[in-house]
Amino acid sequence: MIVVMNPKCSNEHVQHVVELLKQMGLKEHVIVGTDRTVIAGIGDKRNVDKGAIENAPFVDRIVPILAPYKVASKEVKQEPTIVTLGPDGDHGPIGAQFGGEKISVIAGPCSVEDEKHLIDIAHAVKAAGATGLRGGAFKPRTNPYSFKGLGETGLKHLAKAREETGLSVITEVMSIEQVDLVAEYADALQIGTRNMHNFNLLMAAGKTNKPIVLKRGWSATLQEFLLAAEYIINEGNDNVILCERGIRTPEEYVRNTLPLAIIPAVKRESHLPIIIDPSQGTGHAYMVPSMSLASIAGGADGLIIEVHQDPEHALTDGAQSITPEVFATLMKDAARVADAVNRTI
Amino acid sequence: MIVVMNPKCSNEHVQHVVELLKQMGLKEHVIVGTDRTVIAGIGDKRNVDKGAIENAPFVDRIVPILAPYKVASKEVKQEPTIVTLGPDGDHGPIGAQFGGEKISVIAGPCSVEDEKHLIDIAHAVKAAGATGLRGGAFKPRTNPYSFKGLGETGLKHLAKAREETGLSVITEVMSIEQVDLVAEYADALQIGTRNMHNFNLLMAAGKTNKPIVLKRGWSATLQEFLLAAEYIINEGNDNVILCERGIRTPEEYVRNTLPLAIIPAVKRESHLPIIIDPSQGTGHAYMVPSMSLASIAGGADGLIIEVHQDPEHALTDGAQSITPEVFATLMKDAARVADAVNRTI
Amino acid sequence: MIVVMNPKCSNEHVQHVVELLKQMGLKEHVIVGTDRTVIAGIGDKRNVDKGAIENAPFVDRIVPILAPYKVASKEVKQEPTIVTLGPDGDHGPIGAQFGGEKISVIAGPCSVEDEKHLIDIAHAVKAAGATGLRGGAFKPRTNPYSFKGLGETGLKHLAKAREETGLSVITEVMSIEQVDLVAEYADALQIGTRNMHNFNLLMAAGKTNKPIVLKRGWSATLQEFLLAAEYIINEGNDNVILCERGIRTPEEYVRNTLPLAIIPAVKRESHLPIIIDPSQGTGHAYMVPSMSLASIAGGADGLIIEVHQDPEHALTDGAQSITPEVFATLMKDAARVADAVNRTI
Amino acid sequence: MIVVMNPKCSNEHVQHVVELLKQMGLKEHVIVGTDRTVIAGIGDKRNVDKGAIENAPFVDRIVPILAPYKVASKEVKQEPTIVTLGPDGDHGPIGAQFGGEKISVIAGPCSVEDEKHLIDIAHAVKAAGATGLRGGAFKPRTNPYSFKGLGETGLKHLAKAREETGLSVITEVMSIEQVDLVAEYADALQIGTRNMHNFNLLMAAGKTNKPIVLKRGWSATLQEFLLAAEYIINEGNDNVILCERGIRTPEEYVRNTLPLAIIPAVKRESHLPIIIDPSQGTGHAYMVPSMSLASIAGGADGLIIEVHQDPEHALTDGAQSITPEVFATLMKDAARVADAVNRTI
Repeated sequence: MIVVMNPKCSNEHVQHVVELLKQMGLKEHVIVGTDRTVIAGIGDKRNVDKGAIENAPFVDRIVPILAPYKVASKEVKQEPTIVTLGPDGDHGPIGAQFGGEKISVIAGPCSVEDEKHLIDIAHAVKAAGATGLRGGAFKPRTNPYSFKGLGETGLKHLAKAREETGLSVITEVMSIEQVDLVAEYADALQIGTRNMHNFNLLMAAGKTNKPIVLKRGWSATLQEFLLAAEYIINEGNDNVILCERGIRTPEEYVRNTLPLAIIPAVKRESHLPIIIDPSQGTGHAYMVPSMSLASIAGGADGLIIEVHQDPEHALTDGAQSITPEVFATLMKDAARVADAVNRTI
Repeated sequence: MIVVMNPKCSNEHVQHVVELLKQMGLKEHVIVGTDRTVIAGIGDKRNVDKGAIENAPFVDRIVPILAPYKVASKEVKQEPTIVTLGPDGDHGPIGAQFGGEKISVIAGPCSVEDEKHLIDIAHAVKAAGATGLRGGAFKPRTNPYSFKGLGETGLKHLAKAREETGLSVITEVMSIEQVDLVAEYADALQIGTRNMHNFNLLMAAGKTNKPIVLKRGWSATLQEFLLAAEYIINEGNDNVILCERGIRTPEEYVRNTLPLAIIPAVKRESHLPIIIDPSQGTGHAYMVPSMSLASIAGGADGLIIEVHQDPEHALTDGAQSITPEVFATLMKDAARVADAVNRTI
Repeated sequence: MIVVMNPKCSNEHVQHVVELLKQMGLKEHVIVGTDRTVIAGIGDKRNVDKGAIENAPFVDRIVPILAPYKVASKEVKQEPTIVTLGPDGDHGPIGAQFGGEKISVIAGPCSVEDEKHLIDIAHAVKAAGATGLRGGAFKPRTNPYSFKGLGETGLKHLAKAREETGLSVITEVMSIEQVDLVAEYADALQIGTRNMHNFNLLMAAGKTNKPIVLKRGWSATLQEFLLAAEYIINEGNDNVILCERGIRTPEEYVRNTLPLAIIPAVKRESHLPIIIDPSQGTGHAYMVPSMSLASIAGGADGLIIEVHQDPEHALTDGAQSITPEVFATLMKDAARVADAVNRTI
Repeated sequence: MIVVMNPKCSNEHVQHVVELLKQMGLKEHVIVGTDRTVIAGIGDKRNVDKGAIENAPFVDRIVPILAPYKVASKEVKQEPTIVTLGPDGDHGPIGAQFGGEKISVIAGPCSVEDEKHLIDIAHAVKAAGATGLRGGAFKPRTNPYSFKGLGETGLKHLAKAREETGLSVITEVMSIEQVDLVAEYADALQIGTRNMHNFNLLMAAGKTNKPIVLKRGWSATLQEFLLAAEYIINEGNDNVILCERGIRTPEEYVRNTLPLAIIPAVKRESHLPIIIDPSQGTGHAYMVPSMSLASIAGGADGLIIEVHQDPEHALTDGAQSITPEVFATLMKDAARVADAVNRTI
């Protein structure tokens, strides 16, 4: 950490800060510049609230140097983490995989609406090349009057669809008491954007042995995103797949702004795979194909896409769902782009 | 809802949308303009995902007309809701009150650190005019290595401080399984900014009979904020105090941007009281006094302020905590400003 | 335009709004809904400040229906505008072209630093496949103490580099009095992000017969971006190339957030070509290759990239400049991605 | 400046950065920490693009220490700058003043619409206590089809209104060639939010001897805001009044978010006065009174408010204009709040 002193500070003020650093267990290093004195605090004390020093007299500001995350970081683990989803066994090696040369695509409806509808989509997206099936059984809804999902019945439909297609099943878990239930049915648990900062839920998910698709909070920083992953990993579960799903900005032509530069940033900072949700990430079906291709060309390890046979009548997220036909075309184009960047789908 | 059609649309496209509206239970009204046709869908169907219509051919966009919230809205209840906090009984009418002519101030440390420390602050802020005591026992921390609070021990210290001072106690509840425990000790439950979208927690809090201090999500819209309140009220608890605590923006001189215009907006849209947290809302102790006065002059119903005897050694949020001395001066100034806008503290 | 009335409004309030609409030259259409009355104002009056109606009693809000832009819009011109840059004549058809099947790449240093340096880069980027040369002679600098460019000398170096390589020259014009001078030397004038709202400059640029590269303001909406283009086109110059260069958001791992979904949005709304600046758009050299490929896969009509032989010693923007070697590799990868989306570079 | 090295860096990488710092004229200071090496570059080289170092191998990031502004900063001048506006002479000491104990209020229509209308407003706002008259003669309009102001005729009306009332006249200058003309008529030149980064215009304004009201760019940082002031001051004109007018955020209930914490931030960083524009700063007339009072309680040195006799028929900005009656009430309330914070209006 660096403490930047005010130009008017005296020796006593510097000594006072040095004292505070020592109390925190840090070694100090004072640098007297031409215009200002700065004091470096040396040592790894990620657990100390160093911000408090800002309150000392004649301190202008403090600058953290160490990133607060560790086990999610490349400093600790250089080689990329590869996360493989089930199902295992009879179905063989169909499951989705993220973080290696192969790019996997998860597709399916926003919500599980009924069994037949789900199984039809599952067959369609599998035929087009998807290896994972998405579908919400528990739906977090901003509007309390909206459809909130089928609950366990939805989970059963998902399990049935997996049985019939061999696709890996990914579905959201919204609260701690749902974790065991969802883990029983799903191949991967999704933590939604609204829960990225729900630390108790992150820890509960980390205690399962299921891969976790962790969606970025819609105004979370990259650092906070990796710290949320760290919460999960610290519980012993390092099968974390980061998922970018768009952030809040003043842009008016999208529901969320999709910041694809997070792909190279994650690759530089972390060993975890990163996938993109172009459906949530834009909010408009017509943008999904081009942003899917952009994601792959930009280095994403996978995609998660909302597909619905009849988006005009979808119970949720109709505006951003594409049809199985559009999805099939997209997958063909995606394969070509993946090939152009030396990867496969 | 208004559906804006593309200028190239045909009669068939218009009829198709009319059909979709009917299926949603809405009555349609087609308006042929000079450049465009728009179709109004009439009726109150807050539970239907009308966004799906955007996917119909030659629909440019849809514009919702009705606000999705109801019971939090002024349309349903004109007169302001006044929320009174305990403690009741022996201590008499000391408790904080929000929503009427009186402005109440909640103050205390970010985290409960130990009993003596807490009780000392409680006495100090009470002497200065506070009627509520804040203090975190369960702390949501972005950084998993940070101090996470004393848990139930912290709650006990808060109860002790209330016993000694008669101040109302407000403390955060982070997850469903903490709700009953916290409700046993506290006079009001705080839902933190990271949990404003944690709908299961909102519902659990709504099932208690304790007032709820609901902090705005750091990138939540006003509409989402009121919908979160609606989740609580719908469970039978209409003692909701809205709390603005700053939003994420690119501004670099604050930790959060404090948007005080939410005060007149809430007064126009809702019957619920609104209070301001200038500590979280700026991130810097030196800004707390001026933003506290600005909040009161702007019409806020209360303040919640972080106060610590020794901010340089605070376990959490030292950078934004003010000392009891600064708080005492602030309260004197606040009383004058309150008087200037015909209110009392 | 739609005027949404407050539920408490009376007939008189509705009549008052109807009167205001008539005074604006609009035809009114009153729709009485179950919860609210809305009033549609019909007619194309883009020149009237309809926002004023918001001030009428019992008006809750107004919703514009018509986009305010016209000549930049697809409603007026369906087929894409193809913009071809010079130089003409001896050099033949080397110049950059935007808006058709071909993707053109403009590359070069942030600032023109000296003649030899510039000509060396020009040869290098041409060899790698660029068809345009960028380089600032007039530099808008936030910091008044920074290098502000070589001025006309820089323009001369650019002309010399064009003479030697046949590359089209693109350079920024910062104020009206520079327009004629820059137009004399350059094949296209760039309007920078800080000047997108400088309407007098837009009009002056529109009066030249040179293509204009119009950079999006760093917090401009898409609508404002197209309106800025409209200012230029209205002066008789429809050779406008839109350029996305990143927006301001709270993201901390980039200097700007690059919102690539603007590509499909522009393709849907406008006939103008759109190119991407991944250098400004991220602020970090290491992100430029992946975001260049993402842009092409996402449908961009071109790229503008900062290239410098020795970024560590660049006078400006060193952090986001790539070397000619990195650029050459990028161009090979870009050609493959372009092919995968049925385009050529 | 601090250079943060990657943990994998070798001695050679450190030496390479040291060399680069030396070439920039900085003295280096290497600190070997437990996890990382950081290198401080000592010296005041505000004119050097130090960002280039980020491109050196194994550099993770750089952290600037010195603020890039100087003459706008408190480090150079401790005592507050007091800016007094004309008119001088016969009218005596009526002119507005900013930066001292007195708070001045500038009021008037968004645009000058005609002479009588303007003079009537001028009399009304003067009677209520305003000391400055605002009114646009040259209007920057996002929409090219909107009313663009009366030009010099508007300036003449302003001069007439000053003659009749003794109010100081403040009006916007949009481009360099208007500077002399506007300076001839006005007592202060306003640089609008869209031109805060128009450095050539800043310099031209700085060459006049008129006070400058500098509006913050709608997504400018505080640092950029002060640097824009620095451009003006460096031309010899230190009569700069900073004006906050709201920033772009995702908030939907306002046109702009008004970040009042900039008041204490400016007071801490700079000697320049700061005033608030609650009209632009919110976009809604109904919010103007409460945000005006909040600004004063928060420490603002003045206000600039849009007032119109008949906002429903205003040519521009009707939605955010208040009537003279509302203004008169507001001024009475403002006087009480000013008194409560030991200032006068």
